[in-house]
Amino acid sequence: MIVKQDSQAALYIQIYQYFKEKIVSGHFNSGDRLPSKRNLADQLGLSLNTISKAYYLLEEEGFILAKERSGYFVEQLNNFYPQAFKDEKTKIEEKKEADPKVIYDFSPSSIDREKFPYYTFSKLYKEVIDQEGRKIIGQSEPQGKLVFRNALSQYLNISRSLNVKAENIVISSGMEYLYEMLFYIFSKDSIFAVENPGYDILPDMISSRGFSYEPIELEDDGISLDQLIKSKANILTITPSHQFPTGSIMPISKRLDLLKWASLKEENYLIEDDYDTEFRYVGRPIDPIKKFDLNDKVIYMGSFSKSIAPSMRISYMILPDKLMEELRVNFPFFICSVPVVNQLVMTKFLKDGYFQRHLNRMRRHYKKKREDLIEKLEKYDQVLDISGADSGIHIVVEVKTNKTDNEIVASCKKKGLEIYPMSAYYSSKSIKKSSGKFLFGFGNLNLETLDQGLEEFFSSL
Amino acid sequence: MIVKQDSQAALYIQIYQYFKEKIVSGHFNSGDRLPSKRNLADQLGLSLNTISKAYYLLEEEGFILAKERSGYFVEQLNNFYPQAFKDEKTKIEEKKEADPKVIYDFSPSSIDREKFPYYTFSKLYKEVIDQEGRKIIGQSEPQGKLVFRNALSQYLNISRSLNVKAENIVISSGMEYLYEMLFYIFSKDSIFAVENPGYDILPDMISSRGFSYEPIELEDDGISLDQLIKSKANILTITPSHQFPTGSIMPISKRLDLLKWASLKEENYLIEDDYDTEFRYVGRPIDPIKKFDLNDKVIYMGSFSKSIAPSMRISYMILPDKLMEELRVNFPFFICSVPVVNQLVMTKFLKDGYFQRHLNRMRRHYKKKREDLIEKLEKYDQVLDISGADSGIHIVVEVKTNKTDNEIVASCKKKGLEIYPMSAYYSSKSIKKSSGKFLFGFGNLNLETLDQGLEEFFSSL
Repeated sequence: MIVKQDSQAALYIQIYQYFKEKIVSGHFNSGDRLPSKRNLADQLGLSLNTISKAYYLLEEEGFILAKERSGYFVEQLNNFYPQAFKDEKTKIEEKKEADPKVIYDFSPSSIDREKFPYYTFSKLYKEVIDQEGRKIIGQSEPQGKLVFRNALSQYLNISRSLNVKAENIVISSGMEYLYEMLFYIFSKDSIFAVENPGYDILPDMISSRGFSYEPIELEDDGISLDQLIKSKANILTITPSHQFPTGSIMPISKRLDLLKWASLKEENYLIEDDYDTEFRYVGRPIDPIKKFDLNDKVIYMGSFSKSIAPSMRISYMILPDKLMEELRVNFPFFICSVPVVNQLVMTKFLKDGYFQRHLNRMRRHYKKKREDLIEKLEKYDQVLDISGADSGIHIVVEVKTNKTDNEIVASCKKKGLEIYPMSAYYSSKSIKKSSGKFLFGFGNLNLETLDQGLEEFFSSL
Repeated sequence: MIVKQDSQAALYIQIYQYFKEKIVSGHFNSGDRLPSKRNLADQLGLSLNTISKAYYLLEEEGFILAKERSGYFVEQLNNFYPQAFKDEKTKIEEKKEADPKVIYDFSPSSIDREKFPYYTFSKLYKEVIDQEGRKIIGQSEPQGKLVFRNALSQYLNISRSLNVKAENIVISSGMEYLYEMLFYIFSKDSIFAVENPGYDILPDMISSRGFSYEPIELEDDGISLDQLIKSKANILTITPSHQFPTGSIMPISKRLDLLKWASLKEENYLIEDDYDTEFRYVGRPIDPIKKFDLNDKVIYMGSFSKSIAPSMRISYMILPDKLMEELRVNFPFFICSVPVVNQLVMTKFLKDGYFQRHLNRMRRHYKKKREDLIEKLEKYDQVLDISGADSGIHIVVEVKTNKTDNEIVASCKKKGLEIYPMSAYYSSKSIKKSSGKFLFGFGNLNLETLDQGLEEFFSSL
């Protein structure tokens, strides 16, 4: 029985399916002749047209071959096929997202999600989709929508006194993706200098793309200029406004020295990662190096991951004209990874003053959390020092202990505590010496469990 | 006058700013002593505390240095600074997005934006933000949210009879970004084989990341097996269900031959780009090669760029277990570039059946457009042949002409016509011979201007 009149599928599809399965399951062998269209039509009491459509499909996919004036023949298929064809659909069960049994996580990068401006964003999303209409389907320039880049350049002008043109701004989905672009631009023999300790995934990314890097030690006033000059590096990546992880602020003199270094050679560049500059609790935010970048040698990177949420997946960089040209000319195929609707929502968030208000609220909020944490920490006499400047969402705590960092991490893990020793941020190329220093994030500080978390931590020393 | 009582800024900020500008503008020289806090406090009639806060900021940023028992002194700043410091804010004027004077664009990849399901998406965005609440701020696994990957695997199971586990799916912002991940996974000495003609940006991307590639000619039934075997390539990227740009369908026998080739060596892999498979106008969609991938040698790529809109910026791939493990273990720092809110919206769009309904609607819609275009084309006797199978959103038209493709493109451009000759899709490593064949996209077919567009085109031959 080839066709069922009551079947959902069109008749010609049923016939197509019937022969296809016969062929691939080996019931028909290559060279076998199929019944002529006319015969099959009569036999099944169907129109010739229906049969023709079925044969057309079989022929188009190469299951059968039409030979002039002699009919349709099964094609040669290798034996590989039949076993492959059995296609029992295994049920795919919805797996739950795994949640680890962590009672407290002191992650230096976690933010307070409770304070995320849901209402505003839900409103903005709807506004954008309703008002912008068709535009949300529009293509974005490779660098990101111009309206977004204009809003961003105005924000950077006001909040960071950066005098930046929208043409030099590149939008992407995170710092990693900005680096992917830089890896396209920099010549393959470029050598990166990274802070040691520093942002831990950076060395992996750099070497994964076939570049080499040199870790540079930190001095009290930031990265060691001597080591940098001695190194073969031509691209320095730094976090001057709030060094990660130490939290130190690079003094202006050192900043200018680095600018000078960058200007020495044409291939030299500074990558300034201004990752959490929005959160400064005394005075004004510190001027970025980019502000003094007369010779256009600084690549400035910023992000909304800390200031709003990592799940925004929006970061940006300011490229020197020369590098911008490089990217535009040599990699026209680059497509902005941030969906247009998200870009337009962020544009509104910036232009209508929501972002500034959000920052002011969060600054007050985090300042309080920071004070709460420090107040509790100061109760413990194992605490030797608390540092990290008055910025960002983490501080560095030095403790009195006879154990190694790893021992402490291990025993804390047993108690469901995630802690972050300074030593974890040292390059694998250098000795990860136990420092007794630990990063404490306060962005997501939970006063209910904090006491327990701290008790567990200090009892592990 | 150092401070203005009526100023917005706090007093200590005004003092900090005052000295900072004096120092950087060179009015104070390095080594100069600042007034003692006490004297300044008396002089200004302010509290000692206010002055202390100002000096603290100046010291923290390295403008001044405190010397035991002798006071505060201006730090050594190199002369680089002052000129850099002038910081006249140039107005950043909102530039308009440039719209080129194109009267008609036959782009083979443009879709019909008018048919984008706005209402559904605006509803889903709001639903997701309201219902999922906090979750939209949640982090996504590097591969993409599990709920999304589960929905996707169910869709692929039903619509493409692919038996795929969510664990093997990787979500990203576009085919380019999926390749970026593959470039991490494949050993650096891998050699790619690309279809010639084929997707034009692929060779650029491959070589930009330091891999080499070999263009493989197409035969009537798709990529030449002989050339492939003769080549040194170990990774073959193909569009078997609707070859881009020719539009041909690879017969099943050739598909199985390629699977065999992939299974010959451990380092061999097939990349199956199933870019527009949703749009098949006769019969059922063609089975992807991945369906018969017994030996786990096929990387399957799909996207919502054609089926919904490129601005969705969501693509996905199915990785063989071995490669999935590679990615997970060696590149844990990879972060999914698609914002969580977008992932959750697409999850709803898939699970609640919107996508299937949308596809059915678009299939009917594009089928009609395709017929309209062909009907109009057939009126021109310069048309020698129309090909491209009954799939996708473009067809291939061969025309009678004495001009070269480039001549035709040039004269069309003068008339505001964007046309896409087949020859443009040949690898730069091969001769881009004029074929008289042109790609005609009908996704965005505009009946009002189509007649004029076609008139202009044929009058340029």
